[in-house]
Amino acid sequence: MTQFDDQQLRAQAWFQSLRDQICAAFEALEDEGSGGAPGRFVRTSWDRPDPSGEPGGGGVMSVMKGRVFEKVGVNTSTVHGTFSPEFAKQIPGASEDPRFFATGISLVAHMANPHVPAVHMNTRMLVTTKRWFGGGADLNPALPVAADTADFKAAFETTCGRHGADYWDRYSKWCDEYFWVPHRGRGRGVGGIFYDHLEGDWEANFAFTQDVGRTLLQTFPMLVRRNMDRAFTAAERDVQLRYRGLYAEFNLVYDRGTTFGLKTGGNVDAILMSLPPLAKWD
Amino acid sequence: MTQFDDQQLRAQAWFQSLRDQICAAFEALEDEGSGGAPGRFVRTSWDRPDPSGEPGGGGVMSVMKGRVFEKVGVNTSTVHGTFSPEFAKQIPGASEDPRFFATGISLVAHMANPHVPAVHMNTRMLVTTKRWFGGGADLNPALPVAADTADFKAAFETTCGRHGADYWDRYSKWCDEYFWVPHRGRGRGVGGIFYDHLEGDWEANFAFTQDVGRTLLQTFPMLVRRNMDRAFTAAERDVQLRYRGLYAEFNLVYDRGTTFGLKTGGNVDAILMSLPPLAKWD
Repeated sequence: MTQFDDQQLRAQAWFQSLRDQICAAFEALEDEGSGGAPGRFVRTSWDRPDPSGEPGGGGVMSVMKGRVFEKVGVNTSTVHGTFSPEFAKQIPGASEDPRFFATGISLVAHMANPHVPAVHMNTRMLVTTKRWFGGGADLNPALPVAADTADFKAAFETTCGRHGADYWDRYSKWCDEYFWVPHRGRGRGVGGIFYDHLEGDWEANFAFTQDVGRTLLQTFPMLVRRNMDRAFTAAERDVQLRYRGLYAEFNLVYDRGTTFGLKTGGNVDAILMSLPPLAKWD
Repeated sequence: MTQFDDQQLRAQAWFQSLRDQICAAFEALEDEGSGGAPGRFVRTSWDRPDPSGEPGGGGVMSVMKGRVFEKVGVNTSTVHGTFSPEFAKQIPGASEDPRFFATGISLVAHMANPHVPAVHMNTRMLVTTKRWFGGGADLNPALPVAADTADFKAAFETTCGRHGADYWDRYSKWCDEYFWVPHRGRGRGVGGIFYDHLEGDWEANFAFTQDVGRTLLQTFPMLVRRNMDRAFTAAERDVQLRYRGLYAEFNLVYDRGTTFGLKTGGNVDAILMSLPPLAKWD
C-alpha cells in the first residue's frame, strides 16, 4: 500500500477541505438565486490506473449545474506513480527518479448571468525528488466591470503581500503571460495570479497556497452577489457565449494541463470539466 | 508582380469555380427549406502580409447562416511567400528553396437539423521545389444514419476507383486515422477520404482533386434533401450540440491546419471558420 508522508497528507486534506468549503459557499449562492430550482453539487470519483500496474490514485469531480452557476466544477485529485522516461525529462527532479506524487484542486465556474464573471482557480503540490507548489486564480468576465476586476486583483495583491514582497508583481505578470491568447491578441481573462515551482520553505509555501484558496473563497462570492441579479439582454448573453468560445480555444489549443492531459490518457471528464456548458462561434 | 504558372492558375481557377458551384447549390437548398428566411452567402476577403514584405496573397471567406445550414463556410485562398527556416525543414521540397505557393478550398457545414450530417471538404495544391495535391472529404453526423454513411462512402469509393486501384483503400483508412480523437476513443466522423503529397502526374492528380470536389457537390445535397425536413426533438438537438463539442475538440487540439495556422499568424477568422456556431459540453 502506498504510504504518504505528513506533508502529502496535509496538502491532500487541505485541498479536500477547501473543496468542501467552496461547494458549501457556492450552494449558498444557488439558494439566493432565482428562476428554477437551486443547483446542488454531484460528486463522481475516478481511479487512475498507473501504467506500472500499481494503484495510481484518482480524484473526485464535484459538478453543479444550477441557476446562478450554469456549470461549475470543483475537482480534487491525488495521483502517484512513475513517469515515462521522455516525460520524466521535462519535470523538475524526475530525471533522477521517475516516481511522482501530485495532489491538487481545480475550479472552473461558468455563470448563468453574463454580468457575473467566470472564474478559474487551481492549486497543487508536486513531489518528485523535488517538492513544490503551483497554481493561481484568474477572473474571466465576458462583460468586464472595472470594480470587479479591481477588487479581485486587490484581494490577491493583499494575499501575495503577506507572503512575499515580490509575489504580486511576479505572479500577476505570469498570469497575464500564461493566459495570453496569441491568435486573438488578448488575454483569456482580466488577470489574477499564476505561480509554479515554488520550492524551499514547505510550510511557507503551503501557507501561501492555502491563502490563495481562501482568497478565492472570500472574494468570488462577493462578486457573484454583486452581479447575479442584474438584468441582461439577449445581446449580452450572446457576448457571453462568444467569449466562452475564446475560453474554449485557450484551453484546447494552449493550456498545458489540458493538452498534455488529453494526449497522455488523463481522466477526460475531469480534464474537460473546464469547458463551457454552451459556447458560440461566428 | 508575382507570376503564376499555368498549373497554378488552373488549380486556383478550379477551386474558385468549385466554390461558386457549391455556394449556388447550397443557396438552392436554403430556398427549399422552411422556417425563417433563406440564407445567402456573404463574402469577405483577406490579405496575407508575407513576412518578407512582399505581397503574400490572400483569400475569400464565403459564409452563410441560414435555415438549413446553421453555419457553412466555403473558403478559398491562394498564398505564396517564403517559409521560415525551421518551417521549411518540415515541408517536402522546401529545405532546398524556402519559397512556396498554395491554393485551395476548404468547406465546413454545420446544419440546423440534427438529422442532417455536418460535412467537411478541403482540397489544395502545394508548390515548393516539389508540387503536389492533398485534401479529402468526411461526413460528420451527430446522429449517424447507416444509409447516409453508405451512400457518402460509396460515392467517394467510385470516384477513387476512377483514378487509382488502391486509392479508396488507402485514402479511406487515412481518413479514419487522421480524424481519430484519441481522448474520446472514437473518430470525429463516420469516414470519407484523406490524401496528401500526391505528386507525379500533375494532370492525373489535378483530375482526381477536381473529381473529389465534384463528388462532394453531387453527394452532399442529396443527403441534405433526404433529412432536412425530418422532425427532431430537443434531446436530438442536444446530442447535436454535444457532438459539436467533440468536433471543436478535434479541430482545436489535433487538426494540424488549425493548430499550425493559429500558432503561426494565419488568418484567424478563416482558420476558425470550421468551429460550430453553437456547441455544448457536459
